[in-house]
Amino acid sequence: MRLATLRLDNGRTVAAAASVDGWVALPALSLSELLSTGWTAPESGTVTGPLVTGDLALPLPAPAKVICCGLNYGEHIAETGRDLPTHPTLFTKFADSLTGPTDDVVIPGDVSGDWEAELAVVVGRTLKRASRSEAADAILGYTVANDVSMRDWQKRTLQWFQGKAWDATTPVGPVVVTADEVDPGAGLTITCRVNGVQVQHDSTRTLVFDSAELLSYISIFTTLRPGDLVLTGTPGGIGMAREPAWFLADGDVLETEIESIGTLTNTVRVTEPASRARRTA
Amino acid sequence: MRLATLRLDNGRTVAAAASVDGWVALPALSLSELLSTGWTAPESGTVTGPLVTGDLALPLPAPAKVICCGLNYGEHIAETGRDLPTHPTLFTKFADSLTGPTDDVVIPGDVSGDWEAELAVVVGRTLKRASRSEAADAILGYTVANDVSMRDWQKRTLQWFQGKAWDATTPVGPVVVTADEVDPGAGLTITCRVNGVQVQHDSTRTLVFDSAELLSYISIFTTLRPGDLVLTGTPGGIGMAREPAWFLADGDVLETEIESIGTLTNTVRVTEPASRARRTA
Repeated sequence: MRLATLRLDNGRTVAAAASVDGWVALPALSLSELLSTGWTAPESGTVTGPLVTGDLALPLPAPAKVICCGLNYGEHIAETGRDLPTHPTLFTKFADSLTGPTDDVVIPGDVSGDWEAELAVVVGRTLKRASRSEAADAILGYTVANDVSMRDWQKRTLQWFQGKAWDATTPVGPVVVTADEVDPGAGLTITCRVNGVQVQHDSTRTLVFDSAELLSYISIFTTLRPGDLVLTGTPGGIGMAREPAWFLADGDVLETEIESIGTLTNTVRVTEPASRARRTA
Repeated sequence: MRLATLRLDNGRTVAAAASVDGWVALPALSLSELLSTGWTAPESGTVTGPLVTGDLALPLPAPAKVICCGLNYGEHIAETGRDLPTHPTLFTKFADSLTGPTDDVVIPGDVSGDWEAELAVVVGRTLKRASRSEAADAILGYTVANDVSMRDWQKRTLQWFQGKAWDATTPVGPVVVTADEVDPGAGLTITCRVNGVQVQHDSTRTLVFDSAELLSYISIFTTLRPGDLVLTGTPGGIGMAREPAWFLADGDVLETEIESIGTLTNTVRVTEPASRARRTA
């Protein structure tokens, strides 16, 4: 099943599920709200209800937890000469960090924005100290994210967070595909393009810590709940690692695609420098 | 003014403000809920309303953002031989990470729990790319926190987050004192004791990045809103840095005190190892 949050002509949003006839409205303003009510996808894989049309919006606008994994693609780790990690490297974003699948990504002029195409896992059931199989069963589905990172801020200190949590810079969507329909472990092609040039291309098969492992590991220390989002890391090909370094520029079209899920298409808008935007006292 | 969230005999909670006659109930279930409604402290510094009695609970149970600063005490940085940082080192916790001022802190038996007494700033107004003076004006008040850290998990990878965000391990409270009544910049004594032994003792005067500077800096990249919490870092004296290292043990009484605000008194409970608690598939 394909799930979405649609933006209607009147500007409001509604949760929806795909049917053979089109989008069927679900009883919530977004998938975040729907999942918080305890909704689960019907076993039959089909929903009935009023049909609705609208634009695909950020599917999960209000996750309480957005947890991201760092280096997690085997081929990328190998190419950097590192050993495979024993534990996943984790950091966070906020719900505020997220933006929709076709929204502009706004970056201040003095900040170095870079791309990171990622598979994102949507939690469907509460998990606390869960085994790997419990975690696998609790995956509602998968969506696409681009963990757009402000490299200069990421490298200012030892902790990456301040380069990772800029408001409305992480596109997510366009839909959530339930776990019965896609299997990242079997290998989904993940691709990032900038102005049509392919900059990242790998398979989700090569993830060191797969979705179930990440959810189980995280659930040792913090409870995961329906609607929480876990970003699984990015393959090789980021702009910072290139010679010379390549950062996002005004007007760039950033496409982030995962096979069988969909494509994010976001235009980069470079605005006034952050240093000037912070009004001095 | 002193603000609190009280737990009543019936188990429910209520926001409250101190008056000469005792606690006055405010129209919300907690300070988090109160601040989300746009409430601001009256200029007069006095409130009227029904009196209420109860135990001091976690004052802010639902901050959308809990942002913590790493190394931030001048004397501690000097004693470690480091240079003063140019930028604050930031990481996050979740609302789930927090617990009340007298609650037990539960730590699994195979995890190395350590103390970090900290001044915490409560945001009172929305801040986005705010100047230092705007940030100063937006501070509702201050409370006490202990950024209890699981050192082995903190050091598993480059990112500290997984050692910092264990559910219900960061005591906060006992009250929020509004900014007109305390001035951390003038110097408030901050102390941590384990079983009565003083392990940390410093003054908030020696913070490298003070509260207004932290809020202004964070607001460059993410919006801060009423009820959000910023932990300002810990002085020297943590258990990990001792010879031999000293970690929290079952039954330890952890006291965290800031002059003119109050004291957290939490008992440590060591439970089954996390490795065993994670049920294997």
